[in-house]
Amino acid sequence: MSARGQREFFTVKTVSEALSGFRPERRTPAEVVGLDDALGRVPAESLTAPHALPGFARATVDGFAVRAADTYGASEGLPSYLDLAGEARMGRPPEGEVRPGSAVAIATGAPLPPGADAVLKVEHTQSATPELLEVLRPVTPGEGMVRADEDAAPGTELAPAGRPLRAQDLGMLAAAGIVELPVHARPRVAIVSTGDELVPADAAPGALPVGQVRDSSAPALAALVREAGGEPWFAGIVPDDRDTLAKKLRGALHESDVVVISAGSSVGARDETAAAIASLGEPGIWCHGLSLKPGKPTLLADIGGVPVIGLPGNPRSALVVFRLIGMPIVRTVSGCTEPPPEPAVRARLARDLPSAAGRLDVVQVRLSGDDAEPLFGSSSLLSIITAADGYVVVPEAATGLAAGSDVQVMLYR
Amino acid sequence: MSARGQREFFTVKTVSEALSGFRPERRTPAEVVGLDDALGRVPAESLTAPHALPGFARATVDGFAVRAADTYGASEGLPSYLDLAGEARMGRPPEGEVRPGSAVAIATGAPLPPGADAVLKVEHTQSATPELLEVLRPVTPGEGMVRADEDAAPGTELAPAGRPLRAQDLGMLAAAGIVELPVHARPRVAIVSTGDELVPADAAPGALPVGQVRDSSAPALAALVREAGGEPWFAGIVPDDRDTLAKKLRGALHESDVVVISAGSSVGARDETAAAIASLGEPGIWCHGLSLKPGKPTLLADIGGVPVIGLPGNPRSALVVFRLIGMPIVRTVSGCTEPPPEPAVRARLARDLPSAAGRLDVVQVRLSGDDAEPLFGSSSLLSIITAADGYVVVPEAATGLAAGSDVQVMLYR
Repeated sequence: MSARGQREFFTVKTVSEALSGFRPERRTPAEVVGLDDALGRVPAESLTAPHALPGFARATVDGFAVRAADTYGASEGLPSYLDLAGEARMGRPPEGEVRPGSAVAIATGAPLPPGADAVLKVEHTQSATPELLEVLRPVTPGEGMVRADEDAAPGTELAPAGRPLRAQDLGMLAAAGIVELPVHARPRVAIVSTGDELVPADAAPGALPVGQVRDSSAPALAALVREAGGEPWFAGIVPDDRDTLAKKLRGALHESDVVVISAGSSVGARDETAAAIASLGEPGIWCHGLSLKPGKPTLLADIGGVPVIGLPGNPRSALVVFRLIGMPIVRTVSGCTEPPPEPAVRARLARDLPSAAGRLDVVQVRLSGDDAEPLFGSSSLLSIITAADGYVVVPEAATGLAAGSDVQVMLYR
Repeated sequence: MSARGQREFFTVKTVSEALSGFRPERRTPAEVVGLDDALGRVPAESLTAPHALPGFARATVDGFAVRAADTYGASEGLPSYLDLAGEARMGRPPEGEVRPGSAVAIATGAPLPPGADAVLKVEHTQSATPELLEVLRPVTPGEGMVRADEDAAPGTELAPAGRPLRAQDLGMLAAAGIVELPVHARPRVAIVSTGDELVPADAAPGALPVGQVRDSSAPALAALVREAGGEPWFAGIVPDDRDTLAKKLRGALHESDVVVISAGSSVGARDETAAAIASLGEPGIWCHGLSLKPGKPTLLADIGGVPVIGLPGNPRSALVVFRLIGMPIVRTVSGCTEPPPEPAVRARLARDLPSAAGRLDVVQVRLSGDDAEPLFGSSSLLSIITAADGYVVVPEAATGLAAGSDVQVMLYR
């Protein structure tokens, strides 16, 4: 019977094969952004210090700039005495210098006057007279201060290419006066929804006619695209018909760095999707089927250098696959080589999880104290994944996980 | 000596006291946003299903809608036979019904015709003749389908108030036709920088005159405000002078939900900040000093219902304090009651970390395999925190952590 034949997948791959083997070469070009728009953006080149930072020797404590040698041997019982010779002013070049036997009052952050090689904390001094400072403890050279190039020597890398910029990286770039910087453009990710039953989420308020459902995958996928640093755009909903879909995809490919197809849910709809993709260009379909539950009917293709991700029709499966496979692809195209860490916790599995060897299972779980309680149900139900705090991966090599196992739960945020 | 007196902090609190005791009541009002702008936003009320979802009984497999009782006892050796009575169409109400002894072809996602209570997988059938279906296995009622209200019954909570919306939540809301929703407005967070030595990051390219430094804290703090769901705005740089600062703060308080002061680094500058805040209104300063390293010179105040956070002058200390104390405050004001999980890993501490009992220490670490290598250096150095992968907290109760200890590393992203 032909329906049975259609259920066979031609080139089924494991998730690890897909992650290591389907590596798009495409990278978005560089664009220049200001520091205020740079959080999470991916530098297109290594960003280096144009000059030394902080740029001058600075006090790191409130006290007195001194020559350290002048303090050696000082103690509460046998203080040393230094001539007080003025004050280093915040924000201005030093006016005098620290001569042997003298000290200059200085506040945290002010520039060290020439001659000084340490800053004595105010707590370790007493003022004997307005002109004379009593030193109660010795300091060693370099104490109470930072060197002119201690934060960064000229040419030091401040932020590497490929790692999304974090808050502190922006601080460092600001310190160096780098207020505009080259980052990879956000990948434009087209989301094409197919399905004769689909209507847009904003089509009509209230209950729909029997048979119709709102397109829930597209807004959820768009959110994951954003989380991965991409810029989603909705190419629209098309019926499960290969010619209409092929036409829509041709337009989407032209305007996008990645194309995501949220496919119809039936076998017939999936066949239409595969046929439409196959008609579009070379090199074409890379795999048609993943050893993954849920998410087997996943299609990966490369059409003229644009990665195309054909997702399963069930919204929950689509989200699982896009998280596992799609987000890394979007990140790769964005030039990201060091993805940010994801939140995860260890927990105790509350029930047995059976799985087939060679297949990766993604199981939604709810956390209750240290327990991870698996949530079961049809992969057509979104409520399973909205009720979940995270998910557990049963690896390809395992034939399941026993209740009581220590598992890693990847947490949603 | 008066400088020594000034170093005393008046009301020093622990970090836990600050987190539990300094709880602003202020909440931003609700505003309506579209689904495309709702990722990470905080619902201002519980969002519930206006009608049942999916709204009709749906097939979850490709096959045949049947009355389960008609399949009982069927096997490969002794098949049952059912009359094939048409096909349920995707996206349309069923045209006929499933009478006893008959079956209707159906694809995944299509609505079940009246009379049917299960869907038989195509793999468990053979077509005997074009009009006759051979059933090779029995199904039980409810198999191969979901009920009309299985994803959500009317009135079910789809997303709780106070929890930032995740990708799957947006999918669920889309499924229910909720495309506009009330969320808390992003808190407007003013960032006021003080310091006679500060110039804006974009003031001048190249090396600055000796004594001047660029304002690196403001852009980094702005990034953390964004991460916490707030909207930062730069109120500008003011010199370390209480009247100028008080005037600036008065304006900032008027336009903001939270005010952050990135204070001058010296003791004198901090005193000016405290005096400026004290002059502004009631109830005033809540604490002046935290048992925290780095970050002791932190000031928390409430001026007319607006939380004011006075941060230490060292950029690294400022980032540590804002992450620990400031981000939770911004989240609270945004209505967030369930902060998203943060990434963390367990690691083995590579060196001893001394600490004082009663004081919380935040130590920057670099990860190398399973080892967490502490990074030491002046808290004025940003390079310590840009080199870090995350940080380890030495709790208030501990007097330090021994090398080899199992520690939790909070990871930067």
